[in-house]
Amino acid sequence: MTLETLIQRTIAFRDARNWKQFHTPKDVALSLVLEAAEVMEHFQWKTQDEIDEYLKSNKKEVGEELADVLSYLIIMSHDLNIDLLDSLDKKLNKNEEKYPVEKSRNNHTKYNKL
Amino acid sequence: MTLETLIQRTIAFRDARNWKQFHTPKDVALSLVLEAAEVMEHFQWKTQDEIDEYLKSNKKEVGEELADVLSYLIIMSHDLNIDLLDSLDKKLNKNEEKYPVEKSRNNHTKYNKL
Amino acid sequence: MTLETLIQRTIAFRDARNWKQFHTPKDVALSLVLEAAEVMEHFQWKTQDEIDEYLKSNKKEVGEELADVLSYLIIMSHDLNIDLLDSLDKKLNKNEEKYPVEKSRNNHTKYNKL
Amino acid sequence: MTLETLIQRTIAFRDARNWKQFHTPKDVALSLVLEAAEVMEHFQWKTQDEIDEYLKSNKKEVGEELADVLSYLIIMSHDLNIDLLDSLDKKLNKNEEKYPVEKSRNNHTKYNKL
Repeated sequence: MTLETLIQRTIAFRDARNWKQFHTPKDVALSLVLEAAEVMEHFQWKTQDEIDEYLKSNKKEVGEELADVLSYLIIMSHDLNIDLLDSLDKKLNKNEEKYPVEKSRNNHTKYNKL
Repeated sequence: MTLETLIQRTIAFRDARNWKQFHTPKDVALSLVLEAAEVMEHFQWKTQDEIDEYLKSNKKEVGEELADVLSYLIIMSHDLNIDLLDSLDKKLNKNEEKYPVEKSRNNHTKYNKL
Repeated sequence: MTLETLIQRTIAFRDARNWKQFHTPKDVALSLVLEAAEVMEHFQWKTQDEIDEYLKSNKKEVGEELADVLSYLIIMSHDLNIDLLDSLDKKLNKNEEKYPVEKSRNNHTKYNKL
Repeated sequence: MTLETLIQRTIAFRDARNWKQFHTPKDVALSLVLEAAEVMEHFQWKTQDEIDEYLKSNKKEVGEELADVLSYLIIMSHDLNIDLLDSLDKKLNKNEEKYPVEKSRNNHTKYNKL
């Protein structure tokens, strides 16, 4: 299983249903948020202990929500002709400058307040 | 550039800053939503024509937000020991059953109302 | 029906179930986002024409989601001792400065790019 | 300061800028989510102790974000001709049935799993 194969399969799934007509950037972004919210909902109201317990029997469900988020990342980057892996590579370069180890170690402060 | 390399780099970046202490599932999920919201914000209030125009000069910025979403997907799946690609593969299998081509073609109705 | 009465009723509902123990600012904020996402889901994939049609028979459902958002606004402002109406009054003052009519008329550009 | 006055002021602010043209239900819902996300961002990565400390000096900022959420609730309910207070009143009636005190006391389980 490679990302490349899954990108092809995701786009083929979409195109077989002729869904590109619905996939405007605004609606795909909205859907990305909705799926991310579904990931988050698994942890709502739970303490860390309850989350640990919950994950013992619900890891598959969380994985499915993460997959939904990934599928919209794939669709948006495909449709906008953005190289997702290259974007992350460059963002990591940028974050290494924004969050120097000596300043950010053990510190969750955002770069603009560091 | 492979996903595997970027997963390693993302986790190394995080661990060099000793940030795992902040990365509870709840906070990572919350961050996933915040980054997805930043993707969406690029399209707020814009018509499709304005979005097309906007993307001519802002594709890199959108790519950076998509990269942020991907980085939290990577962190959550790594920390929960979830195989992201395998999850998407299985979700695609499931979606093929939930959205049969003959019913879903040209139709954005959710599976539970199909 | 006044807002004041509904604030009292919302807090009484919560306290009768002894739910304040779950209502940390982080979880209430997370819930506010989840309920706002449920409002948004009603409009996912729909064109404006489809939305107009949808609202003819689903206004009550949208109203219930808006009510859920309002209930978490009430809970957070109550628990943090924030006066919601006074906050909006002051924010409107601020927005009148940030978005002067002559610059913002027919223009959805954010204040920091005006 | 009453809610009624603030509804009138919010709509007058919008209409003076001729912004109704941008306020489709989809974009207002999207904006509601973005503002709710900004509330949530105040609590990202923070422990409860850090949140308590943070709120000592940042309550006004959180109040402004809550006000932004309220302003989009007002705009959507105004434009869709939904009575926000009546919706909350009815939702509270419904929640009293969905979450009976004896079952829900000290219990954050969602009604469909109670």
